[in-house]
Amino acid sequence: MNSFGRIFRTTIFGESHGPSVGITIDGCPPGIPLHADDFGEDLERRKGGIQKGTTPRKEDDQPIFLSGVFNGFTTGAPLTILFENNNTRSSDYEKQRAVPRPGHADFVAHKKFGGFEDYRGGGHFSGRLTVCLVAAGVIAKKILGDLNIHARILEIGGETDLEKGMQKAIDAKDSVGGIVECRVEGCPVGWGAPFFDSIESDLAHAAFSIPAVKGIEFGAGFSAARMFGSDHNDQIIDGSGKTATNHAGGIIGGLTNGNAIVFRIVVKPTSSTPQVQHSWNTETGQTEDFSIKGRHDLCIALRVPPVLEAITAMALVDYALISR
Amino acid sequence: MNSFGRIFRTTIFGESHGPSVGITIDGCPPGIPLHADDFGEDLERRKGGIQKGTTPRKEDDQPIFLSGVFNGFTTGAPLTILFENNNTRSSDYEKQRAVPRPGHADFVAHKKFGGFEDYRGGGHFSGRLTVCLVAAGVIAKKILGDLNIHARILEIGGETDLEKGMQKAIDAKDSVGGIVECRVEGCPVGWGAPFFDSIESDLAHAAFSIPAVKGIEFGAGFSAARMFGSDHNDQIIDGSGKTATNHAGGIIGGLTNGNAIVFRIVVKPTSSTPQVQHSWNTETGQTEDFSIKGRHDLCIALRVPPVLEAITAMALVDYALISR
Amino acid sequence: MNSFGRIFRTTIFGESHGPSVGITIDGCPPGIPLHADDFGEDLERRKGGIQKGTTPRKEDDQPIFLSGVFNGFTTGAPLTILFENNNTRSSDYEKQRAVPRPGHADFVAHKKFGGFEDYRGGGHFSGRLTVCLVAAGVIAKKILGDLNIHARILEIGGETDLEKGMQKAIDAKDSVGGIVECRVEGCPVGWGAPFFDSIESDLAHAAFSIPAVKGIEFGAGFSAARMFGSDHNDQIIDGSGKTATNHAGGIIGGLTNGNAIVFRIVVKPTSSTPQVQHSWNTETGQTEDFSIKGRHDLCIALRVPPVLEAITAMALVDYALISR
Amino acid sequence: MNSFGRIFRTTIFGESHGPSVGITIDGCPPGIPLHADDFGEDLERRKGGIQKGTTPRKEDDQPIFLSGVFNGFTTGAPLTILFENNNTRSSDYEKQRAVPRPGHADFVAHKKFGGFEDYRGGGHFSGRLTVCLVAAGVIAKKILGDLNIHARILEIGGETDLEKGMQKAIDAKDSVGGIVECRVEGCPVGWGAPFFDSIESDLAHAAFSIPAVKGIEFGAGFSAARMFGSDHNDQIIDGSGKTATNHAGGIIGGLTNGNAIVFRIVVKPTSSTPQVQHSWNTETGQTEDFSIKGRHDLCIALRVPPVLEAITAMALVDYALISR
Repeated sequence: MNSFGRIFRTTIFGESHGPSVGITIDGCPPGIPLHADDFGEDLERRKGGIQKGTTPRKEDDQPIFLSGVFNGFTTGAPLTILFENNNTRSSDYEKQRAVPRPGHADFVAHKKFGGFEDYRGGGHFSGRLTVCLVAAGVIAKKILGDLNIHARILEIGGETDLEKGMQKAIDAKDSVGGIVECRVEGCPVGWGAPFFDSIESDLAHAAFSIPAVKGIEFGAGFSAARMFGSDHNDQIIDGSGKTATNHAGGIIGGLTNGNAIVFRIVVKPTSSTPQVQHSWNTETGQTEDFSIKGRHDLCIALRVPPVLEAITAMALVDYALISR
Repeated sequence: MNSFGRIFRTTIFGESHGPSVGITIDGCPPGIPLHADDFGEDLERRKGGIQKGTTPRKEDDQPIFLSGVFNGFTTGAPLTILFENNNTRSSDYEKQRAVPRPGHADFVAHKKFGGFEDYRGGGHFSGRLTVCLVAAGVIAKKILGDLNIHARILEIGGETDLEKGMQKAIDAKDSVGGIVECRVEGCPVGWGAPFFDSIESDLAHAAFSIPAVKGIEFGAGFSAARMFGSDHNDQIIDGSGKTATNHAGGIIGGLTNGNAIVFRIVVKPTSSTPQVQHSWNTETGQTEDFSIKGRHDLCIALRVPPVLEAITAMALVDYALISR
Repeated sequence: MNSFGRIFRTTIFGESHGPSVGITIDGCPPGIPLHADDFGEDLERRKGGIQKGTTPRKEDDQPIFLSGVFNGFTTGAPLTILFENNNTRSSDYEKQRAVPRPGHADFVAHKKFGGFEDYRGGGHFSGRLTVCLVAAGVIAKKILGDLNIHARILEIGGETDLEKGMQKAIDAKDSVGGIVECRVEGCPVGWGAPFFDSIESDLAHAAFSIPAVKGIEFGAGFSAARMFGSDHNDQIIDGSGKTATNHAGGIIGGLTNGNAIVFRIVVKPTSSTPQVQHSWNTETGQTEDFSIKGRHDLCIALRVPPVLEAITAMALVDYALISR
Repeated sequence: MNSFGRIFRTTIFGESHGPSVGITIDGCPPGIPLHADDFGEDLERRKGGIQKGTTPRKEDDQPIFLSGVFNGFTTGAPLTILFENNNTRSSDYEKQRAVPRPGHADFVAHKKFGGFEDYRGGGHFSGRLTVCLVAAGVIAKKILGDLNIHARILEIGGETDLEKGMQKAIDAKDSVGGIVECRVEGCPVGWGAPFFDSIESDLAHAAFSIPAVKGIEFGAGFSAARMFGSDHNDQIIDGSGKTATNHAGGIIGGLTNGNAIVFRIVVKPTSSTPQVQHSWNTETGQTEDFSIKGRHDLCIALRVPPVLEAITAMALVDYALISR
């Protein structure tokens, strides 16, 4: 299904080449000041900068409020925001259909939806819809107030020097992946639940909503597999619950422990690479060569930080709303 | 909250030192043959073998059917199963309360529940409750029928030779972590959803319900951060959707793609280690030395495979029920 | 919250005097033929005919598909439909604010949303949004296929001769209420659940989503209070479950029993009546006379049948989707 | 499904002739004092008094706390309560199976669950499970604190003099129905939502969870069908929102309006009547005479008030928890 959240509940809709993409948020409290300008910064960050590796598709990304905003404030009624799709060219997609793009959802979507899916530009599976996630996150962040959520890129193409990583992609004429870290400062102790709704469960659920994410780890993460318990354990050093190492990434027993929440996700290399690839032609029953037309991001990880922040805010905002 | 699943919905309850732990499953179809014996194998596997690193607490773990089973078959009504807690000694816990055990939920539970939590043996946060997850999984697996779900330990204490890893722990008198991989063969194409209910979201949500899990990765996982797109991409090689590499771990665009689902989780070292540790005494306001009494598992990862299989089955069974 | 349904999940949004009202349906299966024309008949019926008692506000009510429809078929992705609001005049509402209209939500909405609500024309509480319910119902009916859902007015202003009832309203220059019955033929045996999700629970939940509905009864309904058990009981007369009386209204133990589902709702008189009324002026702290401007329906019950059918279809469609 | 509530979520389980019936409540806050004695009064009221019309089955109805209660207070973890079934005799049910009892769920349950249902004494459909509803209500009422919820019988067998109504049943050797009214005093303004989660939707959903309820009406209810708008409208007479008539039953636009919530339900005559009835024998394919063995309540409405209060508390408690 296409909804997330129990109190602040976001439903996402739209297709890459349809008239628009959008969200409806149910459960947004009344009285939050909201203007189109509030979205500018995160939507701009989502474009990944004017770096060499990003696609030139111009997306104006002006939020259009259809409901739930009145006189500059949220009303408490369902809040619907649209982003129009401009600058789309759909003509090429029909003929490409027989050859599912490797790493894309073309094949699985066709099977799942029986051929009725809007296949143009990935349809509802398109990264275009992350603009909606960012928008929901902007509002969630406002509700979260003092909480500081910040995501940054740790690695591109295996390099911590990000320019070097991008140059590697450009030199190889190939796409690359990356690692993005998110830190949340200011969470009170006790958000979460011991089993099914652990904070890790919620955040991981949210993070895997971002296309191309293939892993997540909290605190020491996978490196914990090689640590002794006495090293990994997070000694409490004062009455506020502050710990010595934060190897736990701010979460113990599924609950926030008052330290910064720290987690990292891995973003796979862009599926659309300049390299010639191979795929199965479902009409001829043969493998054939395959080239992606047009320019695409060489590294989508560059666009991920504001999306990861958004989805983190969406996962945490329910706790904030319940506690206030 | 303490429930999981939309169709086959499991609610978990109980505390480590209460009379029993248990589950209620709502939405289990009628007509599934069910006997106490069906649980024996997975419950036995959960004990982690008669290895040196596991705790000797004897848990008979006989399922008691309270409802939903009649004449050896599920009835379709809510199915409640209890496991009695025997062999518990609660006397020591009261005095330990002032010093929250490092790596355990003692401190956060106290803050969240205002001191009303059952603190004996971790209460509702105890690993004891994984017996309930295993039980729910046994039933989910029955419904999944042909699907083959198998988890195995890849690493203990950083060693792929598991005995060597355990010996490391014994020699160091310290606990160790591990990595567990789960493979699911036989899923049809198209389970999942593009965004919020991607199969990765569902499986990750479920996996982080297991205490001590701190990371998850699908297919190539974190190593994808260092691959080129043309290497990572999963070329389709026949009409069934079979791919050349399965770097995607059986999931594209949030949907199963017909290949084996493959994912790995990291299990942190047991928080209860034989080493002397330090923690904050909430009464004296001082850091003090801290030793865990009794024997505990040196490596809980040894117990995780059947729990991971269970939770995987619980995450997938809704799709099977919707499709049938 | 503003969503309904577990599988076929409809979220409603919009305000009477905003740019549009609309719905997003998540969980609509792919491959259902869908054209703007499909909505015409029920939307027209919702206008209540060209009877004297209905309001002249012209609502073109052309559905605009924003997502989820492609080449004339549903895609399986979230389906968003808008209806633009034309012909609205909002200027008068600001000054009326201090005097909440009797029988309307003005006062309670103001309290609930702290004054941030869009108060123009009832805002999100407006009967205008029933156009959205009708639209969701049109799609739900398509999925339900063979099921026949039909609602008709039984009484207007206490008269079974409907014209007589309307004449009563016109003569009295006052609004009147009515009773609407809905029959569903073709449900299989066994939809529903014994307690919390009884079919009566589901249908009643849905029916009270329609503004102005104040009661519901199934089968013999309130008259059962005066019957003996041997009269009320519904003797089964053949192997299909057909019963002699259908006093049960097609539902036994919360489950459909294979007979026609029959229920009735009461629709209160239109709150906006031509009569002079009284209300509290929240600014002056005085009771004052109050007149509704413009023309309004004398009997909203006239508009209810297609809305009731719609909401009935929305309540039943989940069962149809689960069973197929 | 067998759960109710979003924050305070109750799952009901058990069968009439199984070892026990019970509930698990997830989302109950910590720190609520809770003793077995707290349940006595409402459980006793549920027995319907020592009146002639009630069944003599002795139900000790001692709550057994399995989890979520510690040292006399709720812990915040899932709270499981059992009530053992004693004094059941199941031997007769097997042979009665071929002739579904009129007015009972036997036939529909058989169809729905494919013959796997526990058919003894109505199984999971039994009125026995209302003991669980009462128990959940006892806890919900504690959380609701100042709110006053009171249900009382208005009519038995068509008589407002209840003894006269019962005598009518005894004289006729037949069962009778009744009408029960519930009033809630003390709700703040603004609980509820305009459409799908109107307070009427929630309360009706809950009320139809009680076996044998076939109708519900709020405030003026069905009589509103014969009123003029100017009579029905509820003039606000002071700044608190108090109204002149409360014809709205305390609910406007789906929201509480600060007046007493008032609603009535109709309870059908007990399906098990002393009269000889007829039913279809599914084995012989013939209609045959049918007599209920043993004594049964002549009027289950007598037992309904505490159940109706309980379910009302369960429906309202989520709002109280969200607002606090």
